[in-house]
Order: sequence, then C-alpha cells, then structure tokens
Amino acid sequence: MLSPDELEHRLRTVGEQRYHIHHPFHKLMNAGELTKAQMQAWALNRYCYQAIIPKKDAIILSKADDPAFRREWRKRIIDHDGEDDAPGGMAKWIHLATSLGLDADVVASKKLALPATRFAVNAYVELVRDEPLMIGIASSLTELFSPVAIGERVPAMLKRYDYITEDTLAYFKPRLHQAPRDADFALSLVKTWATTEERQDAAVQALLTKCDILWAQLDALYHAYVSPGHIPPGAFQPATEG
Amino acid sequence: MLSPDELEHRLRTVGEQRYHIHHPFHKLMNAGELTKAQMQAWALNRYCYQAIIPKKDAIILSKADDPAFRREWRKRIIDHDGEDDAPGGMAKWIHLATSLGLDADVVASKKLALPATRFAVNAYVELVRDEPLMIGIASSLTELFSPVAIGERVPAMLKRYDYITEDTLAYFKPRLHQAPRDADFALSLVKTWATTEERQDAAVQALLTKCDILWAQLDALYHAYVSPGHIPPGAFQPATEG
Repeated sequence: MLSPDELEHRLRTVGEQRYHIHHPFHKLMNAGELTKAQMQAWALNRYCYQAIIPKKDAIILSKADDPAFRREWRKRIIDHDGEDDAPGGMAKWIHLATSLGLDADVVASKKLALPATRFAVNAYVELVRDEPLMIGIASSLTELFSPVAIGERVPAMLKRYDYITEDTLAYFKPRLHQAPRDADFALSLVKTWATTEERQDAAVQALLTKCDILWAQLDALYHAYVSPGHIPPGAFQPATEG
Repeated sequence: MLSPDELEHRLRTVGEQRYHIHHPFHKLMNAGELTKAQMQAWALNRYCYQAIIPKKDAIILSKADDPAFRREWRKRIIDHDGEDDAPGGMAKWIHLATSLGLDADVVASKKLALPATRFAVNAYVELVRDEPLMIGIASSLTELFSPVAIGERVPAMLKRYDYITEDTLAYFKPRLHQAPRDADFALSLVKTWATTEERQDAAVQALLTKCDILWAQLDALYHAYVSPGHIPPGAFQPATEG
C-alpha cells in the first residue's frame, strides 16, 4: 500500500511515461513538421474526442450522490458547452478546425473520422459508464499533464505554422487554468478514496487505460496520414497538399 | 427501397469493397512476406477478437424471443467453445498461437494486445449490446466473405511459411462450413426483416461498421509491427526475429 503522496507520485509517473505528449505525431506537430493536411486530419479526428468529454462528464454526474461534488464537476460541462454568449470548448474546437480550412458541418458530423478514433473515444465513454464512479474520476487524471502539453504545443504551433494564429488556438488558453483546477480536485478525491492496494491499482490502471486511449488516437492518425499513409476506406481524404 | 435480392447484392458489395481481405496486412500475409514476429503479433491480437465472438453471440441469444432462432444461433457458441472432448475455435486459436511460439497464458490474458485491438473489439460487443437484435445479426454478415479469405489464406500460409502446418491452422478448416451455414441463416433473416429503406440502410451500416472494426485491427497491427513499426507502450514486443 502506498501513502497518498506515493500514490500521487505513481500516477504522475504514468503520465511521464505514457501521456501522448511523447507520441511521434505530437513530436512532429511541435517540431513544425506536419503538413496542413495532417493538421486537418488531427483537428477533425480530435473533435470526436472533444465531443464525448461533456457526455462522459454527464455520466460521472449521474453516478454521484453528493451535490457539492456535482457542483464542482459540472464546471467541466459548462467549460465544454459554453454559457450565455460565451462559446465553450466544443465551439472553440470547431473554430480551430474551420481555421485550418475544414467545413464545420463535416467536422461535427464525425463521418470522416477514422474508425479507430471512434473506437478509442467510445472506450472512454464505456470505461466511465461501466466502472465505478471513482474509476471514472481517476481516468480524468490525464489532465494533470495537459498544461505541459499545451505549454509546449501552443508556442510551437504559433512559431512554426504561418497559417496558425492565437485566434486559431483560442481553445487552448482557458484550458491552462481549467485543467489544473479540475485535475487537482480529481486528484485529491482519488488520493482520499484509494486507501487500499486494490483501489490504488485500479486508479493507476484507469489512468493507464486513458493514456492508451489517447495514444491509440495518434497511432491511427500516424498510420493513416503520416506513415505509411494508409487511409482506411471512408475516412477523411485531404485535398491537395497545402 | 430495394428488393430482398437487391439488398443482398448491396451487402455483398460492401464486402467486396471493405472486407479486410483487401487490407495490406492480409496481402502481405498471403504473399508470404510477414516475419514470424509479425505473424505472432497477428495471432496474439486476433485472439482478442476470437474471445469476444461467443460473448457477442450470447448477447444476441439474450435478445431473442424465438427458441428456434436461439437453437440455430447457439451453434455459434458451441463452435467457438467446443463440446465434450472436441475443442472449439477458441482452443484452436490458442493452438495456432502456441504453434507460432507464443505462450498460451500470455495470449489468453490479452495483456499484450494492442489497445487499439481492444477498443475495436469492444466496439463490436457494444454494437451488438446497444443496437436492436436485427442490427447485431446484420453485423455478423462479414461471415459471408470469410470462406473466400480462408480459401486464399490457408493454402498461401502452408506454401509460404515453412513453420506453418495444417495442424497449426486447424482453426480454419471447420470455419469453411460453419461460416456459410451461419451467414446464410443470418442473411435470410436480414432479407426478411429489412422491408423498409430505413431498415435496409441500418443493415448496410451495421455491416460497414463491422468491416471498419476488422480493418482497424489490421491498421493497428500494420502501424505497430510493419511500418513504421511503432509499438505502443505496454504492447507485445517480439523476441529476436525468426
């Protein structure tokens, strides 16, 4: 059995080793080596992931008994779906995609996404739906690592792709304070709950599975659009290369 | 609206265009161009698919009201799980894997399978579980095309890989009569049921999704073990090349 701080260390180690920031596709992106077509494929596919986040958070709400927990967790849904006139993360992701030259309706339809993207993304919904509440919460802990990824990605993209502006990347800026707020809350819950070896292993396993879900999405993008460039039948075919 | 025979033609066209027999990984396999390590990766991952087949068939049984239907459909479970002393397809697949040099317990544990394999395979269970009975039945129609695939694969494998014998491939032989028996039964049910345009579209879509599920498994194998050969963290690492 680990102490709460040892558990936190173990969870953070999973991120250091398995978070998709280390994936070759993200390394190419940050190095400025992706074509616009590859960037489009990324934005179009990642929309499928964005689209299920508020749904999986609603599943988590639906499993929780504590109004105070639900008040905190519902912020995630508000952040993604927007409030009053303020657009949420979903709308900002569509904006990112259209800024890259994609059609908003095509992106939102998800029709041209890679099947592997859909399967990976649905695995996340399924995990949150079928596993106990705290496992769903633990699987959200990849957000512990996302500010570092965003901190690398945004300046790299602005510097290395002349068609990308701060406006294109408006999605990411609020994530820099939302993600740590959300991750800290989730981490403290997991540390309080995981007081047995079995629970600690289950929390770590949930985070590993979530890392696999993110990694598999980039594997599929790499296979289809980088090397060997085998686009599965029915998936997004980039227009002539930009 | 299509006539029943036109619907059958449309379903068969899906197979001609999208069945995984056309995937580059299978083409390499049939051409004798896979290494033993790549063949191991295939056998180990495909076990995950084999393993969910009787489970998805049990879901189909659980949704059916008609004892006559269930008597027919349960044959699939018997074929996979075996009866009395006769091993079923699952045991034969393990035999195939161990004949290729893999450890039976490792294969059965599924621990070293690609995450993308698990996600694709679970998408099949999810489809059968969450969609109506007839859609689950329609998704099984890839078996219409499997005898052709087996008819190509078995002689090619025997001829082109000196470590593969008829005994290695014992899984496939009974499939040559089981698959047509099962597929003909499912096809006649789908043709009888799909008497509206909406049902016909749904049946075709189920078959397309199933083809995507099979295709995505080979995409993941190709990416990890053929080109560029990026094995995701935690997945099967072949021993020295045979």
